[in-house]
Parts: sequence; C-alpha cells; structure tokens
Amino acid sequence: MYEVVKGDAERHLKLLKKKVAFVFVIGNTKTAEVEGITVAGENPELIKYTPPADVELLYYGKCKSISAIPATPDGKPTPALITYTALKLVDVPFFVVDSGLMVKPKIPYISIEAPVGNNIAESKAMDYKDVLEAFERAKTFGEQISKYVDIVIIGESIPAGTTTAAAVLKALGLNAAVSSSMPKNPVELKMKVVEKALGRMGKISDPFEIISEVGDPVMVGVSGIAMGSRKPVVLAGGTQMVAIANVLKRLGDIDAVIATTSYVTNDKNADMNLSPCPVISVDLGLDKSEKEGLRAYAQGFVKEGVGAGGAALLACVNGINQDEFVKAIEGNYYKIVESKMV
Amino acid sequence: MYEVVKGDAERHLKLLKKKVAFVFVIGNTKTAEVEGITVAGENPELIKYTPPADVELLYYGKCKSISAIPATPDGKPTPALITYTALKLVDVPFFVVDSGLMVKPKIPYISIEAPVGNNIAESKAMDYKDVLEAFERAKTFGEQISKYVDIVIIGESIPAGTTTAAAVLKALGLNAAVSSSMPKNPVELKMKVVEKALGRMGKISDPFEIISEVGDPVMVGVSGIAMGSRKPVVLAGGTQMVAIANVLKRLGDIDAVIATTSYVTNDKNADMNLSPCPVISVDLGLDKSEKEGLRAYAQGFVKEGVGAGGAALLACVNGINQDEFVKAIEGNYYKIVESKMV
Repeated sequence: MYEVVKGDAERHLKLLKKKVAFVFVIGNTKTAEVEGITVAGENPELIKYTPPADVELLYYGKCKSISAIPATPDGKPTPALITYTALKLVDVPFFVVDSGLMVKPKIPYISIEAPVGNNIAESKAMDYKDVLEAFERAKTFGEQISKYVDIVIIGESIPAGTTTAAAVLKALGLNAAVSSSMPKNPVELKMKVVEKALGRMGKISDPFEIISEVGDPVMVGVSGIAMGSRKPVVLAGGTQMVAIANVLKRLGDIDAVIATTSYVTNDKNADMNLSPCPVISVDLGLDKSEKEGLRAYAQGFVKEGVGAGGAALLACVNGINQDEFVKAIEGNYYKIVESKMV
Repeated sequence: MYEVVKGDAERHLKLLKKKVAFVFVIGNTKTAEVEGITVAGENPELIKYTPPADVELLYYGKCKSISAIPATPDGKPTPALITYTALKLVDVPFFVVDSGLMVKPKIPYISIEAPVGNNIAESKAMDYKDVLEAFERAKTFGEQISKYVDIVIIGESIPAGTTTAAAVLKALGLNAAVSSSMPKNPVELKMKVVEKALGRMGKISDPFEIISEVGDPVMVGVSGIAMGSRKPVVLAGGTQMVAIANVLKRLGDIDAVIATTSYVTNDKNADMNLSPCPVISVDLGLDKSEKEGLRAYAQGFVKEGVGAGGAALLACVNGINQDEFVKAIEGNYYKIVESKMV
C-alpha cells in the first residue's frame, strides 16, 4: 500500500508502530479568494469554512460550522474523510492547531495567534514579527506534544496552499511546478499569482522573511512544531510539505520524512523530488472503490489534504490492508455523505 | 513532604512516578472586580493579567503580558513560581487551556471557547448553552491528552475563584467556609457575594446549571478535562477543586484525588473534608525560606494556585526533597523576582 519513493524512511516507518501524536495545522490565506485557484470548498464563501469543518469531522464524524462536509463544487468529498477513517482505525491522540484561521472550529484547538495570510498576488503575506512570534509558540507546543511520543505526524488544511507553496519554493531558488486539487490544474493562473508575489518581493534569503512575503500561516505553524519536536516528524502532505521541508532545512537539521498519497507522487506537476528528505507514497486504492466520489481521487481530483496520506500510512503500518481501508472509507462515505443526501 | 489527609491515594501517588501530563486551566470571573475580594494581582486593572502572566512564566521563566510577575499588592509572588520550579525539575509535558480568559497569554494555548464569567453578585455567571459546549470541548481535549499518559494533573488560575467555589459548594448543599489568598480572609464580603448569588438562583440540582448560575468558567474546563480523561486525575488546588470534585461526583464516577498545599489544608476556612475524593496535603517548607516573600506563604498569604501543591507533589514523588525544593524555589525567586528589582 506504500512505497518509499525517495531516500530511506525505514526508521520512521518503524516508529509509526509505536507512540504517535497527530497534529493538524490549519489556516487560511486570502490567496484562495483569487477566482478559480482552488476547489477546496463548494463556493468562495464556503472556502473559509473548509479548514474548521475538516477538523470538526475528525473529532465528531460530522461538521458543526457548516451543515454538510467540505466538498468540491461538484460534490467530491474532503480528504478529511480519509483521515477520519484512519483515526477511527488507529487510536492515536490528535490535536488541531489554529494557524491563521478565518473561522474558528467548534472543537478544542491550540492557538498560536498566527495571522490570516494575505493574498500574495496583492500584498505581503504576513507581518514578519507576527510570523516569528507564531513560530515560537508553535515550537513550544511541538516540544510539549512530542515528550511522550516516538514520532509526530503533522498534517495541514489550507485552501490555495499549493500556490503559496510554489511561491516559497521558487523564492528558495527551487524551480517548482505547481500541484493542485484539480485534474485540470489552473497552472497559468497560479503561476501568474506566484510571479506577481515574487516580483514584489525582491531578493531575500531568510526563510522567515520569505514566508512572511509569499508564504502562508500554515507554513509557520508546521515548521514551528517540527522544529520544536524532540522526536522525528512525518510531514503529511504534498508540495506544501515539500516547501516546508525546504524551509526547515534552511533553519537547521531536522529528522523528517514526507508522506503523501500516490495521487500526488504520480502527478507530474507535484515535484516531490524537490523534497530534501525521504518521501513515502501511499496508494489509497480508491480507484477500486464502488463510490464515484471516492474514485475521483484516483482520477486526479483533490488528491491529498488534512494529512490523508500520512493517516493512511499510519493505518497501513499498523496492520490495516488496502481493501480493509477502502471498505472503511466507503462505510464512512455512506454514513457521513450519502445517507445525508436528499 | 506530603501527607494523605483524607482517603487512600496510594495508587495515584504511584502513577505520579510514571507518565504525567499537566494541564493548567485558566480564566476570569468578573467577580474579581468586587473591591477587596482578591489579592491575585497588584491592582484591579492588573488582576485580569494574572492568569496569562502565570502561564507565560511556566513556559518562559518570565511574563510577556506584563513586565513583572504577578504579585499581591505588597509584592508576594504568584504561586506560579513554585509550579515553574517543579516543572523545571521534572520534565513532564504541560499545556494551558484558555477557559474564559479576558486577556490571552502569549504562549500556545488550547481554546475551548469558554465565556468570561460574570460577577455572580450581580448576574448569572454564564450562559447554560455556552457552558455545555465548552464542557464538551474540554472533554474532547481531556480524552486526547490522556491517551499516552498514566495520570493527568489539572491546575487552575482564576482570581476570585474561591468565592465562586464557595457559591457552588453551597448550591450543591454543602455548607462550605470560604478560603482565601489573604490571611485576613474577607469572609464577610465573600459571603455577601455568595448569598446574593444564591438568592438570585432559586432551587437547582443540575450541576451544569449550578455552574452557569453561580460558578466560573474554569470549573467548566477542569471538570470537562477530568471527565474526558481516560486516566486517573489529580485536581491540583484547594477549595476550588473541592467544588469541582463535588460537581464531578454528580456527573458520574471519577477516579480523582485532590492535591494542595498544607497552607490550605491547615486553614480552618478551607474545608477540605468536603472533598468526595482523597486529599493529599503538601508541605512546601517555605516557613524555612530565607526569603521573606516566600515565607509569607507559610503565614497564610496566597497559599495555593496554578497547581502549586500538585506540582510540588510531583517533584517530591520523583525524588526531590523539601530542602532541595525550597532552595530551587529560592533560586528562581532570585532570578525572576529579586534580580529584576530596582
């Protein structure tokens, strides 16, 4: 069900059988308001509810901030459904960090007082001082949460996060393609946003300054927690985690691997080779699903998010096989999505 | 250094040698604005900064929201200094829950969206629905945080919390005296507040309704975390924890003990016998301190707070003797308080 597609991840894979904490870092960037840039939400007004609704689903099996679960405009469900399924199968403690949310989730959440990110096409993403302060708080939390565990998995949810990730990668001097939650990736639109952002920025090498200029608040939370952790970390996500891993590499030595879905690692626009750390690809097997909404993942829709790849890896390493996992996702898809349809 | 003054706490004491998480639940009630009711802060304006400053001290060894550490009007330091010392000696993960704060701390904190408590002398403390929702979130957090530990210690910081505790105890039909952070306890003033609150309330037996009427938000957070925990808990505090333990008893079976300082258990106005669970009394030995500000604790000032008794117990159970502990507190008192004086 999984394959190490870059580097050596044996040690991290072994640790996933031991004590694991899962941390979801969620936030918003107004870059998502650029029309057509994301499908993480049925319509622009709903996009800002996607991160809180995603994590409500994880805790309660339903969303509280919105009536249905987050979906693309044509009804493909959020990857939080996959993560929810994994967390039901493997009983690990999990926590949500508000890393620049527009709408707070109706669950207990950790605040690091990160700002909402500005639209990087139009202005500087965040104040530099705010970034440093939120990073320090995330680091403190990362240290505390890692004390009794063997490994920390960090997932993310931020609409338009692939665009800010591309901007940060380019600002770091890496020539990244741009991944997307859509099969017809609006690459041109995204590259226009990225170029506008980089054009405004000037020459900068300090990674915190780069994030402040063209990044997003979730990068701040994830990198802070990873730096604060006393234990190895799994960055659960696609190109966004590649950008963050490169930031971390600039900040110091970090014992991390990236885990993501095969829908991302097979995407030519998601250059996981830019990762400075090992990469694990997880095949969710959704191509074999009876449910059209889930098969869509294998056809290039949504692909990843809310730590879905990392959560699936956790389930797999702890003895769940692909067929069981697909069945369990389908069961939850029925319970949470289909049975609620009118 | 400690003594079980009520019931049997052997099992809990053994667990304190194993994996421990410490959770600090902090908040505000406007009851603290009644003139003369609390000394948890140098002046009325500063009182609302006491809980955030207390927990900033725990993480960073200094306060960020205010320039000096919280103190009584005549300069006796916050019990957070004692807790800080214990947490430096015993490396356990600790977390802060915002359970109705007026001012947010400059640290990572868990939000359960609890409301600030109203002045119970004047009006209903909190909306019933808000109480239930905050309780549910606290419960969710308590469950997550308890998964990998053997025992959870819960401390509190809320100015005027002894007054709301007395009101809740009386509402539960227990005839409580009223404890205080002052040696000349303004009992009459407090009882006037309590009677006003109870007079307004009418006959109620639902513990959530009682808390909504005459309690405070910290009670909501502490009881939620305790109920959510899969492991035994230590309620670290004085009469406030007695009130909460009685609430918990009404809600269901709970595996808890109370740990507090001997300055509380020796106080005739702090009736720890009303506790439905075992009580551990911890003698901090501050009567032997060279520092006047610390000796004041043994003379009936401050006495307890921010989980000081429970933190000291944790240090003691893990091999720190009283002399070592007093020396360590003195060292921190010098570093954090005296050396900053002009």
